[in-house]
Amino acid sequence: MTTLSGLTEQIYSDRDIMGLFSGPGTLRRMLAVEAALARAQARCGVIPDSAARCIDEVCHADDIDGILDLEQIAAASMLAGNIAIPFVKQLTAAVRQVDPEAARYVHWGATSQDILDTALVLQLQQTIAQLDQDIGSAQAACARLTAAHRDTLIVGRTWLQHALPTTFGLKTAGWLEALERSRQRLRQDAEQIALLQFGGAAGTLASLGDAAPAVAHAFAEELGLALPGMPWHTHRDRLANVAATLGVLTGTLGKIARDVSLMAQTEIAEVAEPGGPGRGGSSTMPHKRNPVGSAAILAAATRVPPLVSTVLSAMVQEHERALGGWQAEWDVLPQICALAGGALRHAVSMLDGLEVDAARMARNLDATNGLVLAEAYALALGSRIGRMQAHEVIERASQEAVRRRCTLKVAVQDALTQNEATRNLLSREELDRLSDPANYLGQATALSDRVLAEWQAKLGTEST
Amino acid sequence: MTTLSGLTEQIYSDRDIMGLFSGPGTLRRMLAVEAALARAQARCGVIPDSAARCIDEVCHADDIDGILDLEQIAAASMLAGNIAIPFVKQLTAAVRQVDPEAARYVHWGATSQDILDTALVLQLQQTIAQLDQDIGSAQAACARLTAAHRDTLIVGRTWLQHALPTTFGLKTAGWLEALERSRQRLRQDAEQIALLQFGGAAGTLASLGDAAPAVAHAFAEELGLALPGMPWHTHRDRLANVAATLGVLTGTLGKIARDVSLMAQTEIAEVAEPGGPGRGGSSTMPHKRNPVGSAAILAAATRVPPLVSTVLSAMVQEHERALGGWQAEWDVLPQICALAGGALRHAVSMLDGLEVDAARMARNLDATNGLVLAEAYALALGSRIGRMQAHEVIERASQEAVRRRCTLKVAVQDALTQNEATRNLLSREELDRLSDPANYLGQATALSDRVLAEWQAKLGTEST
Amino acid sequence: MTTLSGLTEQIYSDRDIMGLFSGPGTLRRMLAVEAALARAQARCGVIPDSAARCIDEVCHADDIDGILDLEQIAAASMLAGNIAIPFVKQLTAAVRQVDPEAARYVHWGATSQDILDTALVLQLQQTIAQLDQDIGSAQAACARLTAAHRDTLIVGRTWLQHALPTTFGLKTAGWLEALERSRQRLRQDAEQIALLQFGGAAGTLASLGDAAPAVAHAFAEELGLALPGMPWHTHRDRLANVAATLGVLTGTLGKIARDVSLMAQTEIAEVAEPGGPGRGGSSTMPHKRNPVGSAAILAAATRVPPLVSTVLSAMVQEHERALGGWQAEWDVLPQICALAGGALRHAVSMLDGLEVDAARMARNLDATNGLVLAEAYALALGSRIGRMQAHEVIERASQEAVRRRCTLKVAVQDALTQNEATRNLLSREELDRLSDPANYLGQATALSDRVLAEWQAKLGTEST
Amino acid sequence: MTTLSGLTEQIYSDRDIMGLFSGPGTLRRMLAVEAALARAQARCGVIPDSAARCIDEVCHADDIDGILDLEQIAAASMLAGNIAIPFVKQLTAAVRQVDPEAARYVHWGATSQDILDTALVLQLQQTIAQLDQDIGSAQAACARLTAAHRDTLIVGRTWLQHALPTTFGLKTAGWLEALERSRQRLRQDAEQIALLQFGGAAGTLASLGDAAPAVAHAFAEELGLALPGMPWHTHRDRLANVAATLGVLTGTLGKIARDVSLMAQTEIAEVAEPGGPGRGGSSTMPHKRNPVGSAAILAAATRVPPLVSTVLSAMVQEHERALGGWQAEWDVLPQICALAGGALRHAVSMLDGLEVDAARMARNLDATNGLVLAEAYALALGSRIGRMQAHEVIERASQEAVRRRCTLKVAVQDALTQNEATRNLLSREELDRLSDPANYLGQATALSDRVLAEWQAKLGTEST
Repeated sequence: MTTLSGLTEQIYSDRDIMGLFSGPGTLRRMLAVEAALARAQARCGVIPDSAARCIDEVCHADDIDGILDLEQIAAASMLAGNIAIPFVKQLTAAVRQVDPEAARYVHWGATSQDILDTALVLQLQQTIAQLDQDIGSAQAACARLTAAHRDTLIVGRTWLQHALPTTFGLKTAGWLEALERSRQRLRQDAEQIALLQFGGAAGTLASLGDAAPAVAHAFAEELGLALPGMPWHTHRDRLANVAATLGVLTGTLGKIARDVSLMAQTEIAEVAEPGGPGRGGSSTMPHKRNPVGSAAILAAATRVPPLVSTVLSAMVQEHERALGGWQAEWDVLPQICALAGGALRHAVSMLDGLEVDAARMARNLDATNGLVLAEAYALALGSRIGRMQAHEVIERASQEAVRRRCTLKVAVQDALTQNEATRNLLSREELDRLSDPANYLGQATALSDRVLAEWQAKLGTEST
Repeated sequence: MTTLSGLTEQIYSDRDIMGLFSGPGTLRRMLAVEAALARAQARCGVIPDSAARCIDEVCHADDIDGILDLEQIAAASMLAGNIAIPFVKQLTAAVRQVDPEAARYVHWGATSQDILDTALVLQLQQTIAQLDQDIGSAQAACARLTAAHRDTLIVGRTWLQHALPTTFGLKTAGWLEALERSRQRLRQDAEQIALLQFGGAAGTLASLGDAAPAVAHAFAEELGLALPGMPWHTHRDRLANVAATLGVLTGTLGKIARDVSLMAQTEIAEVAEPGGPGRGGSSTMPHKRNPVGSAAILAAATRVPPLVSTVLSAMVQEHERALGGWQAEWDVLPQICALAGGALRHAVSMLDGLEVDAARMARNLDATNGLVLAEAYALALGSRIGRMQAHEVIERASQEAVRRRCTLKVAVQDALTQNEATRNLLSREELDRLSDPANYLGQATALSDRVLAEWQAKLGTEST
Repeated sequence: MTTLSGLTEQIYSDRDIMGLFSGPGTLRRMLAVEAALARAQARCGVIPDSAARCIDEVCHADDIDGILDLEQIAAASMLAGNIAIPFVKQLTAAVRQVDPEAARYVHWGATSQDILDTALVLQLQQTIAQLDQDIGSAQAACARLTAAHRDTLIVGRTWLQHALPTTFGLKTAGWLEALERSRQRLRQDAEQIALLQFGGAAGTLASLGDAAPAVAHAFAEELGLALPGMPWHTHRDRLANVAATLGVLTGTLGKIARDVSLMAQTEIAEVAEPGGPGRGGSSTMPHKRNPVGSAAILAAATRVPPLVSTVLSAMVQEHERALGGWQAEWDVLPQICALAGGALRHAVSMLDGLEVDAARMARNLDATNGLVLAEAYALALGSRIGRMQAHEVIERASQEAVRRRCTLKVAVQDALTQNEATRNLLSREELDRLSDPANYLGQATALSDRVLAEWQAKLGTEST
Repeated sequence: MTTLSGLTEQIYSDRDIMGLFSGPGTLRRMLAVEAALARAQARCGVIPDSAARCIDEVCHADDIDGILDLEQIAAASMLAGNIAIPFVKQLTAAVRQVDPEAARYVHWGATSQDILDTALVLQLQQTIAQLDQDIGSAQAACARLTAAHRDTLIVGRTWLQHALPTTFGLKTAGWLEALERSRQRLRQDAEQIALLQFGGAAGTLASLGDAAPAVAHAFAEELGLALPGMPWHTHRDRLANVAATLGVLTGTLGKIARDVSLMAQTEIAEVAEPGGPGRGGSSTMPHKRNPVGSAAILAAATRVPPLVSTVLSAMVQEHERALGGWQAEWDVLPQICALAGGALRHAVSMLDGLEVDAARMARNLDATNGLVLAEAYALALGSRIGRMQAHEVIERASQEAVRRRCTLKVAVQDALTQNEATRNLLSREELDRLSDPANYLGQATALSDRVLAEWQAKLGTEST
């Protein structure tokens, strides 16, 4: 097939998933579906055993190019409106070469969309299985970081400003927990989408007569799929659910990449993406290590949401077969899969090799000369002189600290000393304690411990 | 508050849900959250009982305008960056007027986002409860149509062209089943989002010291919410899931509205939306009955998917509190809720009063002079002379039928008679049977029966 | 390069444009840009003439595979973060094989984005030129239809309901005029985007010292591009404008396709897409002619708007080179181009071969027994008995016509006769005249004539 | 009217534009359109002068509540499908109270969409006029910053990493230039959209008979609008163009806000948004100044692109009046206007009061110990020992500088000294010159000067 795909796509899309949905990848699954249909119909006595055997054999040819001409399918599809029509023609011809009688039974009783949708289901199953495994790897990396940095101090940032101290382990625990939610939802979605599509030209299976229920049952069985309540040619909610879940997964990965890339800024330098030959370097600027993983993930997180919007918009499908809506899904669902998968692989390698500079985190936490601990001082003082008054004292001391470029501790000490009434409110030891961010972490470690324990418990259950 | 909302919004948005998320609606829930926080802290001995009682009382004032000035909150929010900051100021002032001591404990240990997110959770819970009930009503209407039109013939349409016969009951069964899937998913989502948000300034609850876990527990209990593994200020996947599920629901409603509006076209006239004074009429064109319900639903189905995209894009939130992403959710989530809710209410009244013209459906089915039954003839013939040859005979007969403007039955009969070999292949009785679309419905009624039975079973279980 | 692209993409995407943005297509333009840079620098004395000649020669090699290894570029890009870095390495190696000295001057002073953006500009120019020509063809078809159907009656439809008579020529005139607006805007956009990107590592061209302005000038000249006020690495508004204009064009094509597909419905059958071997047929349903062109266009009109949204979202680019936003454009802009181009080609062939059934249009216009002319009767009567009263008379007559299944003319006649006062208000001749839709076309032909005349005038000017 | 609008909307939406599109704002413009229609028809002798005078007077009532009941219009619209139908009923009743005869001529010959679209055009004109002025203010602020910081050094950042030195003035010049492009495009769009909508029930103006052209002409004149080639009820490209241009404007503002918020990070602190009472403060964290302007702009830049996507999707409108697509525009276009306007106002105040810390910029530029100047050293050296070899020397020196935590200058000096051959290649003076970032600015100041000069020239032309 002529090469029409772009080069850049491969930077953020997962190659395996792209392969799965490529021309050959799709046709392979369509062949598997036609083969299963023939076997099922033979089992039910609808077509001769010999025909089914022949169709099955042709469909499982090692060399797909021997039976199908991709260029011709692409060209004919433009006129036919979908790829199944020329595909069935070519498959029938290939079967005819082996057994003209068998050729009569190719695609028996099915409609194009039956084959295309069922093949899509197989592709989505395989995609989700891969994503499930990759999420597990990303989680393992997050868990390692959470355990290793249980007590690593970092400043909590809100509105991109320093807020209060927290731990780096709590940050990574948040990533870990969010990934777990996506994983669970994806597993649910894998189940609800593992369905046969089989309805014939108008969803009634009329052409199979009374044999229809038995054939449908056997067909689903051959592929290890469930049988839906009724054909779903124009009810695409289950596909849209998968798309949305992949959108949410990509959003979570985007959040992680945003955090990483912000922490990797030259002035902040708390983490760095893994280096290595050819990775993120700049020929003209030897000091640079570009966060290429984050960039790829953030690009995916920019691209996927509008694609999910497309899938949702395309749900408005007409009657028993859509005009435009179904067709709009064809390349958008694969793109969502490949982008989510690519983002995930980038995340795995980024998290696996993430370089963490705990010393720098500590230094950055100190950048405001202790102002991030104002709340701690205010609370300590508040228990003695009331919250309002304490707040005023600390607010003034904070301004002093900024003006004098001294630490908040010194400014608080001076403020308290100036006034007879407050002179002895906080002892030197207490001030020392208050000025250490490690003493104002609240539930940070308890929370990250809990998240980690839950993940380890789940891991234990699964591996058993 | 100055009236800045548009008039048209109310055509497709649900007024109840709009009210729930309106200025007063939101502030009421923020008050409920602050009250619950105070009660929880009193239970844990963190603040005095008397303070909690006073705060609780003020927060439950009948007249919200007595304690809060909405105009001022709106104006101050522009500078403060969120509505919680001026809200807390005003609430504190209102409490101070009753009990200056109690005012010290308003919003104790919480951050703005704790209050805003928890209030949002309460709003979403109420929204989903309403949607759940309304989906039930829409389903009841679909079930009635399915039962009533179990045997009503209609042409199945693919690519907006006549395909094969089916039943109107199977169409409505498809609607019913799709709504059920959205309902189940929405219930799941209601559960996963019923969570407290409580983390304080950086998500560590540092300001509450050792009391934090107990307070968090009591706070959640007071509101009937679960306690999450950790604060989720910048992990918005659960909200995004709700948004996506509402997007899928709206997509399903859009599919129904597209079907209805196509069937209601003047030339097709198989169904009509309910009429009535002021509904869908045109002053200059007395014959018209505009499908206004479909229009509102289709508008919602055009608007919601990009809003879901916004929520997904906004998931890329920085560190412990976002800059832009969180803020982007504020009005988009309510819009998604109100549009989905509005589309649903339009669907309920459209389906409840849908006028169905079964006779017209039968007439339309006949519009191609029987060509929609070509497959039936081909199959019948195929069992005798082979699929390929049968197909050729029928294809030629179909062309003849078009050319001569006769029925396919006549054309088939003539074609078979012309040739000695085929003359007696199909008897007159057989031809009569083949020309009746009711004999080529395949599994249509069986499928719709099954869907209906499942729904009735579920209904039985729920009402018990 | 391994085949990773999907088959279905080619159904609605233009193959030529896909080729333009494919791996080889992009690399060819990157080579052209590097060659132009070298020539410009030689002209300005920045690099030796011999080096420039050598670079230019290598860049214009007939066989791109002789100098570049696409697979390796794809693989290296994942680590490097963009395709320009491995591309420059390979190009340098290829030049080195010819002249080691010249290799020193490859990509001199440029940054990756300079090459990528300038290559993109060349691709967009070529894309727009093709689209311009194709729009012209679509317009020519619309103009032919407008001229041929100047007086072809068709019912005007609002809310998918019959409204008043109009002409088919006015409908196609609307398509023609809308295409003209897109064409003009596209031409403007082609001009504003015909710009060099050249800034070096941080947009200052520091590495070229004082020679920078001269080199930039010569570089632009070599490529026939204008020189922008300053580098635009992170100001993407001009690209976003192009994307939006293509979105609007696709929207207009979608409107045309929606109209065509609705008119092509089996029950309406006013137009049919062109047929032909392999086009829109259905093997099991010989009577069908699926509107495959409309489907492809409508799919594109569903897919392009969210892609435009991506480009707009991606405008939020950081500092002097973006992290995520730029990368998000890479495949989205090509997709927009290919989808708009594909929709356009489908439109051209659909409009060129559109089969119009004027007799059927006339018959459909009559489907309401003349009710679509109620306004005409009301106006005629209103001039005599006042608008309000006339309206009431006609409204009642319309209801009678529906009830009795008679024509509105008969019902009006009867209504007037019943009452002494109104008996002679409308003569038989007048009633005849009023019942002919050709007499109630208002400005339809005048408007379509004007649109056609303007187009012909423009055509005359251009061809001169 | 009941208050259903949210509070938060006002944080990022412009209140003036919200008012313009509010219920009363819209109805006022609809009244103005109906008045102009009556005046035009009187001028053409189609309706009596006295009727026109009466209608005109009622439409210009000071108190809109005296003639229209907004609550009732909202309620009736849900059934009628648009707000114009109940509006015309109420207006007719109000006119009837003054002059029953005049009431007959209200809304004569027009269709609902004529009034709604023309009112929308008036609203868009006023919106664009306000935006034009506000863009001017934002540009003035950018120009002041560009002039003031012509020579203020700042590090250029690519991929969020330090790259090379540049000037802050060049950064703001980029903002200024991008705003100018949006302004020019917006002006163009204002012109192309300044059009009457007037076609009657099916776009043919049949009800006006031969008077139609004259009335249309006079109607347009009364409102200062142009007359389009033909009615554009279902050709929405011109509206979509406006939406897209506002999307591009918001994208540019988002880019500015992203830059500002990144520079305002605690660790970077190169700029700060203006402070002041109630602005961006945090009660619990006195040191914080939250970039609330950036947050509002970034939220708008997240929300607007999907709304533009909605407008583009909604272009696929059926026949002569759409079902769903038109309705989808109603609230989305106003939201786009209000969000773009709000983002712009936030940008104006943010840029007007931006606090710039040039000393901090200089300090940050030095954060890598001179590594950002590696290219400068490499070029200087390259002219003597060839680019490749020079590059290697500097790459090694850079690594040494990182390892030894010394400046790049020292590392380079040491590297050159170690080797006899290179010892005297760069003099001490040359090394001093190379280590000063001010000597490696390339065209930064020249470019910013040019942009500023062009803007000042344009300003001069306009104010003349």
